[in-house]
Amino acid sequence: MQTPTVSQTLSTTLQHRRKRLAELTETPAILWSGGYISRNFPANTFPFRASSHFLYFAGLPLVNAAIRLEAGKLELFMDDAPPEASLWHGEELTRSQIATIIGADRAYPLTELASKTANTVTIAVQDSKTYQQQCQILQRNVPYPQQAKEQDVDLIKAIVTLRLCHDAEAIRELKKSATVAVEAHKAGMRATATAKTEAEVRGAMEGVIFAHNMTTSYNSIVTVHGEVLHNEEYHHALQPEDLILADVGAETSLGWASDITRTWAVSGKFSPTQRDIYNLVLIAHDTCIANMRPGVEYRDIHLLAAKIIAEGLVDLGILKGNPADLVEMDAHALFFPHGIGHILGLDVHDMEDLGDLAGYEPGRTRSDRFGLGYLRLDRPLRSGMVVTIEPGFYQVPAILNNPSFRDRYRGVINWDKLAQFGDVRGIRIEDDVLITETGTEVLTANLPNKLTEIETLVNSRS
Amino acid sequence: MQTPTVSQTLSTTLQHRRKRLAELTETPAILWSGGYISRNFPANTFPFRASSHFLYFAGLPLVNAAIRLEAGKLELFMDDAPPEASLWHGEELTRSQIATIIGADRAYPLTELASKTANTVTIAVQDSKTYQQQCQILQRNVPYPQQAKEQDVDLIKAIVTLRLCHDAEAIRELKKSATVAVEAHKAGMRATATAKTEAEVRGAMEGVIFAHNMTTSYNSIVTVHGEVLHNEEYHHALQPEDLILADVGAETSLGWASDITRTWAVSGKFSPTQRDIYNLVLIAHDTCIANMRPGVEYRDIHLLAAKIIAEGLVDLGILKGNPADLVEMDAHALFFPHGIGHILGLDVHDMEDLGDLAGYEPGRTRSDRFGLGYLRLDRPLRSGMVVTIEPGFYQVPAILNNPSFRDRYRGVINWDKLAQFGDVRGIRIEDDVLITETGTEVLTANLPNKLTEIETLVNSRS
Repeated sequence: MQTPTVSQTLSTTLQHRRKRLAELTETPAILWSGGYISRNFPANTFPFRASSHFLYFAGLPLVNAAIRLEAGKLELFMDDAPPEASLWHGEELTRSQIATIIGADRAYPLTELASKTANTVTIAVQDSKTYQQQCQILQRNVPYPQQAKEQDVDLIKAIVTLRLCHDAEAIRELKKSATVAVEAHKAGMRATATAKTEAEVRGAMEGVIFAHNMTTSYNSIVTVHGEVLHNEEYHHALQPEDLILADVGAETSLGWASDITRTWAVSGKFSPTQRDIYNLVLIAHDTCIANMRPGVEYRDIHLLAAKIIAEGLVDLGILKGNPADLVEMDAHALFFPHGIGHILGLDVHDMEDLGDLAGYEPGRTRSDRFGLGYLRLDRPLRSGMVVTIEPGFYQVPAILNNPSFRDRYRGVINWDKLAQFGDVRGIRIEDDVLITETGTEVLTANLPNKLTEIETLVNSRS
Repeated sequence: MQTPTVSQTLSTTLQHRRKRLAELTETPAILWSGGYISRNFPANTFPFRASSHFLYFAGLPLVNAAIRLEAGKLELFMDDAPPEASLWHGEELTRSQIATIIGADRAYPLTELASKTANTVTIAVQDSKTYQQQCQILQRNVPYPQQAKEQDVDLIKAIVTLRLCHDAEAIRELKKSATVAVEAHKAGMRATATAKTEAEVRGAMEGVIFAHNMTTSYNSIVTVHGEVLHNEEYHHALQPEDLILADVGAETSLGWASDITRTWAVSGKFSPTQRDIYNLVLIAHDTCIANMRPGVEYRDIHLLAAKIIAEGLVDLGILKGNPADLVEMDAHALFFPHGIGHILGLDVHDMEDLGDLAGYEPGRTRSDRFGLGYLRLDRPLRSGMVVTIEPGFYQVPAILNNPSFRDRYRGVINWDKLAQFGDVRGIRIEDDVLITETGTEVLTANLPNKLTEIETLVNSRS
């Protein structure tokens, strides 16, 4: 790596993080960064992404490095680039220079790591080759996080405690990421007037992210088929009557994510039916955020969104019955089949590598209810958490054509009425919300979400 | 995968390719596509890239699929998406639909593969998890291509023979890829006037590639430090006196690559010293292409470039001596330390996973000469080959400050003269060249490379 752009407080922050870790667990831990992963041939690699747990304590996306954390001290293990590498990669920072930047207490070549593994714990990385090294150096089968036992679990729980609530350094990075994602979405809206395909809108959006020397935090969704929830294809032509659903986030060079969804009309003007549903989703979104503060259960925010959507669909004549009963029977999930959001940090679904150890309060498990089982976070909100709020409405053929659902909900759906909303395949509105001492701060607030403001942006072209 | 955009002739082409394979080797072969590779957590994956050998015969980037090739027949092995996947991914093509598109002779679920492995050969894929499946299903340690023996080597050699010379379908895809890369470079030049950083130019270029629903064929180089040959950082500010070196290529949705480098002045106007070196590199580039035709040795094209660069540097007073002698002593490589180019196809360095089995004519090996050892291709040119031609001039500190080089070449470098060219850190001009029956067709010819035309484009802004 060449000279990275880091804040002057990075090394102090990292020191604080490892001291807090030491307060939560006494067992020494080794965390690996991971290596380059080959794409179609060895030298053609995917862009490097360091393990998030490593990044949290080491600060920089170092390739093929490890850190050992014990009693608030950080030891860095990495090799200097061989001299001949400078022909291809220029002068790279040495281990000693990196140790200074991140405030490491000691720094060693990688070969030293094997002699410092006694009684250490770790977390398995995603990269298979590095995972094999973990097992080899620790001389044991490192369990994947969801199967972790004993000491490894103590480390995982301690790291979850730390990473759930962000410090000032993390919040600064998350805000940087949000700012760039906001610009990307504005560019996507402005590009729509002249774009002929989903791909053109995506290109305009990701171009902005790369222009800020960031990357995408996940594979972008930019589609006129918002009802396909994880649609990663971009080949459809844009039709004037379509809505574009764009779920695009940025990731800073130090790894921190943003995650924003907006939905807008290709023509620049929502139809009356699109307008009705959009405003319903927006009310759910705004009401959720207005009700968030420390101590509130995120699950209750999800159920609040479900209730508002059920009420709204009753008002529009699409659902029939009492909204509370409809939520109880999961009828909202016919149109809003996912959770209201998730935690956000170094990963867009933060710490999802740990399974529900991060997202679920100890003792809680996933519901088997259709309308609750996809909830990724079930904890009381705490100051310093960043979560997404992303209610939506979709007409998913796999749900609405499912015979057992059609049977189960036959008394509560007005199919004729629903047919009138055929031009609303998928709408989602998603923002990133920091929980503060007293309420919330929306990190993505600079991106309009009111329908008229969205229309103005789309019509402003570039 | 949803419905892919493929030519009507795809299935005929694929049939032709496997028939030709059967003419070269009788042993049945199984080729795996590979799977999704996790980035920071399991569900957050890198964009999928199928193995190039699989793509060559199967045509489509199918995830977790395998094909068995024997006697000109193709059997497809893949599982249909489970019904619940349609909630997240929409309706995906079934195995049977895909079999029709690619003209498979038979199609089976993946579990059937294990019963069809007798006496089969294969090529190891990059993706570690799939590689483990290869070993497990074939019940042997599949060697990496450069260690391959016996039957695996016969398959490799047969595939090299096929993939070295492109058919009409491949050339159409390569041209599509070239066309988009050309547009990306034009966008980068136009964006320079208002860009403040390398990242902004990169964003403009990659935005165009994504807008065409393609991806980059390798990690882009967009830098004011062209002397760092594989520079993948984009954080530098642009200064008016800088040159930008942009090495950016596209990859079509079916996997075919382009690879273009242009160098331009941030200010829109080259300095006299930058102009002198640029024109020298361009003469080398043009002369190489003018001398290419079937039967000509690519190594001689490399040496021709070396000689022209040596002559030019003598004319400019930077080198002293007889150009042929200078090339003989590798003095050209002080400033042009890499090969003149490489083969191009489904991989940007085509078939580089096979090591020099693809790039080097049987019986030939890498030279240990400083000025020849980095040559990636040493074969006679043949009609249907696509190669890059990419001469360059760089002032690489790791070379020019190397005491042993300084000693060895002390008699032939005029350091005072060289110091006058301090504003030329790196210049490269790279195009993609198809060898035809009678000469060449430059696939990237629509992108200007004459200095005045480049200046006009940069000054045209957007």
